[in-house]
Amino acid sequence: MSLKTGLRKSQSTILATALAAALTGFGGAAVAQDAPTLTKEQFDRANLLYFQQCAGCHGILRKGATGKNLEPENMLKLGQQRLERIIALGTEGGMNNFDMMYSKEDIALLATYLQMDVPVPPERNIAQMRESVNRYVELSDYPTKPLHGRNWQNFFLVIERDHGSVSVVDGDTKELVARIPTGYAVHVLKSTENNKAVPHANPEELGRFWYTMGRDGKMTKIDLWQVPEKMLVADVQIAYDARDVAVSGDGKYVIGGGYWPPHFVILDGKTMEPLKVVSSRGINVDGEYVNESRVAAIYDTPHAPSWVVNMKELGQTWQVDYSDIDNLRIEMIDNAKYLHDGFFDPTGRYFQIASNASNIMSIMDTKTRKLEALIEVDALPHPGPGANWVDPKCGPVGATPHLGVGKMTVWGNDPINHPDHAWKICYEVDTDGPGLFIRQHENSRYVWIDQTIHPDQEVQQSFKIIDKETREVVKTVRLAERTGDVAVHFEFNQDGSEVWVSIWNRGDSLQPNGELVVFDANTLEEKARVKDLYAPTGKFNVYNRTNHKT
Amino acid sequence: MSLKTGLRKSQSTILATALAAALTGFGGAAVAQDAPTLTKEQFDRANLLYFQQCAGCHGILRKGATGKNLEPENMLKLGQQRLERIIALGTEGGMNNFDMMYSKEDIALLATYLQMDVPVPPERNIAQMRESVNRYVELSDYPTKPLHGRNWQNFFLVIERDHGSVSVVDGDTKELVARIPTGYAVHVLKSTENNKAVPHANPEELGRFWYTMGRDGKMTKIDLWQVPEKMLVADVQIAYDARDVAVSGDGKYVIGGGYWPPHFVILDGKTMEPLKVVSSRGINVDGEYVNESRVAAIYDTPHAPSWVVNMKELGQTWQVDYSDIDNLRIEMIDNAKYLHDGFFDPTGRYFQIASNASNIMSIMDTKTRKLEALIEVDALPHPGPGANWVDPKCGPVGATPHLGVGKMTVWGNDPINHPDHAWKICYEVDTDGPGLFIRQHENSRYVWIDQTIHPDQEVQQSFKIIDKETREVVKTVRLAERTGDVAVHFEFNQDGSEVWVSIWNRGDSLQPNGELVVFDANTLEEKARVKDLYAPTGKFNVYNRTNHKT
Repeated sequence: MSLKTGLRKSQSTILATALAAALTGFGGAAVAQDAPTLTKEQFDRANLLYFQQCAGCHGILRKGATGKNLEPENMLKLGQQRLERIIALGTEGGMNNFDMMYSKEDIALLATYLQMDVPVPPERNIAQMRESVNRYVELSDYPTKPLHGRNWQNFFLVIERDHGSVSVVDGDTKELVARIPTGYAVHVLKSTENNKAVPHANPEELGRFWYTMGRDGKMTKIDLWQVPEKMLVADVQIAYDARDVAVSGDGKYVIGGGYWPPHFVILDGKTMEPLKVVSSRGINVDGEYVNESRVAAIYDTPHAPSWVVNMKELGQTWQVDYSDIDNLRIEMIDNAKYLHDGFFDPTGRYFQIASNASNIMSIMDTKTRKLEALIEVDALPHPGPGANWVDPKCGPVGATPHLGVGKMTVWGNDPINHPDHAWKICYEVDTDGPGLFIRQHENSRYVWIDQTIHPDQEVQQSFKIIDKETREVVKTVRLAERTGDVAVHFEFNQDGSEVWVSIWNRGDSLQPNGELVVFDANTLEEKARVKDLYAPTGKFNVYNRTNHKT
Repeated sequence: MSLKTGLRKSQSTILATALAAALTGFGGAAVAQDAPTLTKEQFDRANLLYFQQCAGCHGILRKGATGKNLEPENMLKLGQQRLERIIALGTEGGMNNFDMMYSKEDIALLATYLQMDVPVPPERNIAQMRESVNRYVELSDYPTKPLHGRNWQNFFLVIERDHGSVSVVDGDTKELVARIPTGYAVHVLKSTENNKAVPHANPEELGRFWYTMGRDGKMTKIDLWQVPEKMLVADVQIAYDARDVAVSGDGKYVIGGGYWPPHFVILDGKTMEPLKVVSSRGINVDGEYVNESRVAAIYDTPHAPSWVVNMKELGQTWQVDYSDIDNLRIEMIDNAKYLHDGFFDPTGRYFQIASNASNIMSIMDTKTRKLEALIEVDALPHPGPGANWVDPKCGPVGATPHLGVGKMTVWGNDPINHPDHAWKICYEVDTDGPGLFIRQHENSRYVWIDQTIHPDQEVQQSFKIIDKETREVVKTVRLAERTGDVAVHFEFNQDGSEVWVSIWNRGDSLQPNGELVVFDANTLEEKARVKDLYAPTGKFNVYNRTNHKT
């Protein structure tokens, strides 16, 4: 489609200019005579590179979080050469290598940039957000039924991270239906989910509208009932750095969480008009003020008119009640640092989230709005969208992979009927390397887990399939062999008969060379490929995500 | 609209917004050669003077609040001479004159200081607070009954602002019982009050322990059962600039509110150990981030286990539930800027607070934890501890003086039995000048109101007494005639038969020349004086404050 190339060019231009402009504070400080310096152009480029690949772990203010503190005082001690080496090759402490993505020149720029004063990005007020709202389709022009004959409940929405787009793939026909321009590096997509406390007025519309958040703070609204070229219906920029988004059960509100400025924004789910901004700056569980207090995972709670809004650096989950946003009720639930990603138990009552720097899975009871339990697990748990199933001995269980070790940890999560196993480790399975994602479906006997984080190419290109009954690895699949390709992220189709896996190549992310590999969920054999994608990562099946089926 | 056009628009909007935002971030202006400078010693003195007399209205960061923005950009335009004149003589906009308190040299220092970069004060974490706890009497040594034979329920605790002390005066004998060293410029004192939701385990102890907050962030715990020299039992510093304090109904917790750092702290009411810090930095009702978001009045709510914590710059009342401080529930109730001081209606359900920059009295329903009403009043309402009584026509009413005009405004505050008058102005009475305080007692037929803010000496030395039945001024009393003396603040004694009024002299506040004048509440004649006080201001009668009698 003609949209593709045009989009790619303009998208990267806008990024280079707008992000650098937003984040730069260049030009204030007095500089010592032999201090590292860059031209404004070089600084802006380094600033953009830092934002795209470093800020996630180290923070915009470089004070450190999952990654180390990178303030100039520490960086000047390491010096130019050592910094270049670390950026290029990574560290044993868990830092990635960037020599495959960044040129030597860019690495040198970054190393110098890190030794210079930290530019503090600006705030963003509600008036600025409101000015940035774009409505491409007017509300009055929204269709009252799907304008195409496809089975949209089995659509997969596929994140094309660095390309700044989401592709819509027909799960029945495996055809690419649409490519929607979004913010840069979308992290997740969310739709209205089934909420027993605030049911949707039109249940047939569950899963119709999808909302994304770009890493550049751009929120996008997608209408799957539209013709492909009109599926992008609105967008708005609520931050300069951001990750997550969620919808209220009734579809009335959308919430977007900012990394910078540190805040969350409640918007009108129909018009995308920002209605309310709440600062996430706060005091962490150690009693220290955190300026860059970032908003991590956000989810609608299936049994209450609220979202769980996770404060990464604070080590707090804020349960934000949206039943009256002018008198906004929040429970600030203390747990542990740094909160990252999480998922609900099968009943939808308990939210299970990784406090990854504490090697803890934190459990919140969204009914009592209190902390339920802390489960000590291994290094750096990262459940992604997680997996729940019924274990023959422990009853209902949840599970996570780890960023720090090749291991699946499984815990009991049914305190009502299996109190002896609740919030205790049931069993663990070693894999060949640390990974990002785990997935299962209630109609399938297997759990799928990746090994994306392992430095060895063969390991990161392979994933494991584990039998829920025997708790054994039944198959190891090597998905790709091309240098740079890694296997990442699983998503079942609507009826649980297929598993879709991404081949992700970070070094080739602006070319449509990426693929999704479709496996038969029972035979575990490859059955199809979806091609021409831009380095696909996360995938979201409409039906499963909307109905909490996985 | 075609997708392409829409996309282009979105991008240019984002670009424009980001660029504009980035431009405002260009803060660090290079210092011109003839820029105003001070020696370190001069700067520190000016900084102290600014903190003591200017920061309250203009903010530590000088961004302005009740007072104007005083950032260097604006100050440099005015220049040294004009600034000196304004500081010395005040302005018609409501700024006080300081020539009576500050020498010419100090005024010159301040004028220069204001043209220099704003020094940002440090944060203060919970570890630093904990290190600052002093316990002068161990818990095990607390007496189980009063160690003196005085009627401590009729004690008056008297603020000696600039002297940094609180005097305890025996209301029966008018004797000075003790003088307790506190933080600088205590704003209020609070004790455990009668709370129906969380009653005190030992009701006979209601009013025994008192807590103060100094303007320097020092919280002090006072035990009225002790011998005078041991009444100071503990203190702790929770901030560098602060105003208010409150106690939980059961006496288990104390809360202190900081101006800087902008936060509030929940402490153990027994040991004064800080337990929990919550940031008050937030987004105001206009959708703008406020760094210096100061905590104004705090009160225990008589019908719920919660405090109303008022966010001055945000225009929000946070109802903070203390029944589980690890899962802290807060309702962020939007009302209007800038929140200052407030008081409950006679039932204790509705909190009535001045949003003084909006000329509004904001009413919160602490039962539903929502905004109840906004009442438009005249310029700069300032109720202080307020006054409620029963009006012959409107039924139960509340009332406030104003900082901006000589007027008492009276509104109905009984929505249950007098809905027609609820939250509407019932009547107004003109006085001779703007004032700070109003007071009444259920056993007295009169309301007392001061005129402290009027620039004319005769007016600020006089106060008015108004008849609740006839709504007429029945007497104007000139309390003092010495230059610099003003009449301020009223407090009834335990049975409502006396009214105590302060003679306050700002220019003589470090000498024990101040007096309280005691009036017969029925004949309105002077009956006694309490002398040897350091410029007394606010007074707190133990029984009345603890039992919401006034």
